[in-house]
Amino acid sequence: MALTVVGSIAFDAVRTPFGERERMLGGSASHFALAASFFTDVRVVGPVGEDFGPEEIGVLEAHGVSTADIERVEGGSTFFWRGHYDHDMNVAHTDDTRLNVFADFVPKLCDDNRDAEMLFLGNIQPELQRQVRAEARGARFVALDSMNLWIETAKDALLAVISEIDCVLLNDAELRMLTAEPNLVVAARAIMALGPSIVVAKRGEYGAALFTGDDTFAMPALPIAEVRDPTGAGDSFAGGFLGFLDGAGAHSPSNDELRQAMVRGSAMASFNVEDFGTDRVRRLDRDEIDARVAAFKDLTHF
Amino acid sequence: MALTVVGSIAFDAVRTPFGERERMLGGSASHFALAASFFTDVRVVGPVGEDFGPEEIGVLEAHGVSTADIERVEGGSTFFWRGHYDHDMNVAHTDDTRLNVFADFVPKLCDDNRDAEMLFLGNIQPELQRQVRAEARGARFVALDSMNLWIETAKDALLAVISEIDCVLLNDAELRMLTAEPNLVVAARAIMALGPSIVVAKRGEYGAALFTGDDTFAMPALPIAEVRDPTGAGDSFAGGFLGFLDGAGAHSPSNDELRQAMVRGSAMASFNVEDFGTDRVRRLDRDEIDARVAAFKDLTHF
Repeated sequence: MALTVVGSIAFDAVRTPFGERERMLGGSASHFALAASFFTDVRVVGPVGEDFGPEEIGVLEAHGVSTADIERVEGGSTFFWRGHYDHDMNVAHTDDTRLNVFADFVPKLCDDNRDAEMLFLGNIQPELQRQVRAEARGARFVALDSMNLWIETAKDALLAVISEIDCVLLNDAELRMLTAEPNLVVAARAIMALGPSIVVAKRGEYGAALFTGDDTFAMPALPIAEVRDPTGAGDSFAGGFLGFLDGAGAHSPSNDELRQAMVRGSAMASFNVEDFGTDRVRRLDRDEIDARVAAFKDLTHF
Repeated sequence: MALTVVGSIAFDAVRTPFGERERMLGGSASHFALAASFFTDVRVVGPVGEDFGPEEIGVLEAHGVSTADIERVEGGSTFFWRGHYDHDMNVAHTDDTRLNVFADFVPKLCDDNRDAEMLFLGNIQPELQRQVRAEARGARFVALDSMNLWIETAKDALLAVISEIDCVLLNDAELRMLTAEPNLVVAARAIMALGPSIVVAKRGEYGAALFTGDDTFAMPALPIAEVRDPTGAGDSFAGGFLGFLDGAGAHSPSNDELRQAMVRGSAMASFNVEDFGTDRVRRLDRDEIDARVAAFKDLTHF
């Protein structure tokens, strides 16, 4: 089993009420890959600059993540995001975004990564997602994430790639925006009418909901008293969700497998927010994940 | 077992994308009482005007609700609320509020209602809630709801009555506002530090969360494709929640009883939104409630 992910690999500068970091490993592919690495073999595709060094590569490789398709652009700088959170940690304020090496990125997958059974198209330009999807000839299950920027500026390309994949993971506000349907159930059905058989609505501090042709599942997020940095939580969710499915060989997942995957996604997101950047997920072990799955059962069962 | 509720008894005029009603039975006490009536004996305290006739009284009495303390004010008009919902049904827009007979309301409870084991202080002026709490000498378990208006204009009185009761039910935004704590877990602890042993955070379309000294429980709302009118859903939640506890004789409820009550509250709220005003709850039967409790298990268990 293997899971290829394409997405941003970044340096993040983040300020929250709990502190400030000037330069941390970040980006959708980094958060996704670390979370998924606890469940399956993960392979990252994406560009970095000269400033991306052995330390950052080492974080990924220490978790067994393949970095063969991390393309180091000579003379380039790594994607950079600066943001902050005020009192309300549910709202990210972007202060600066520099695409840098991502501006001219043309994805190229090595044979191993093209053959992976599962593919995650992280939040990047929809045309790039489409190119990667076309290259990934071995992929039996493909999921994507996106964002309001692409819904506003590249909606047709986004709808085109959505029609070619199996599973959409979006924030509930993005699902509503993309479909122009304020009701989440109706919005999920509208996405499924385009092709995907699975829609996951990420709801931040409220949890997540899963829609398939014949099942609806919803779960709250774990209430956490000290959310230190929510950056990357959605990508950690996706990593736990798809990593679990790939690790279980569930490339035509049953409703039950999808529910179990939702719990792993929620668990990884809950760890993500407990510390800055990737710090909490980096030092995680499998026993902690199992304990957190049990905590979600305690939280929700009656 | 008996459950006394004080709160507004109103006529509502509501417009949603699904239609318009000019004059419906509404108000916190009405929605609460009808929902609770499926689980226990309910007694309503509150004023109405001359315009409140046998038809409206009949709706309550048909569900076995005691109307002995519904005070009919000669020459007065019933509390009136006019509002509408646009595309996003999660946001209520108030177009008109007329306190009418509520402006001079002095609560008086008959002996039967003072002796009820359980008391719900619906969303009215905190000083009135405090008077009713003092009169209800038999109450072994007291809960309250409130709103942003009272947090802004009568915060001291609200904190005073909160310190005298067992359970607070508020929207999560109201909990944050009241405690000036953006984190819900911390906000719930701050409320418990004032006296109550139970805090319920209502989260609208996202469900509800329960906090006690040693338990945390959370559940999503049932995803519903056609939300016709959300007015009163929070009161129906409270009615199902407290009605279940009173009907079960749970006046010092265990965590398990509280979880079961959360599910009944969520079930009653989910029915509430399926039709205008009290229409759906009025025509409900117990089998439908049982089926919906099972639907919540299907929705959330893994």
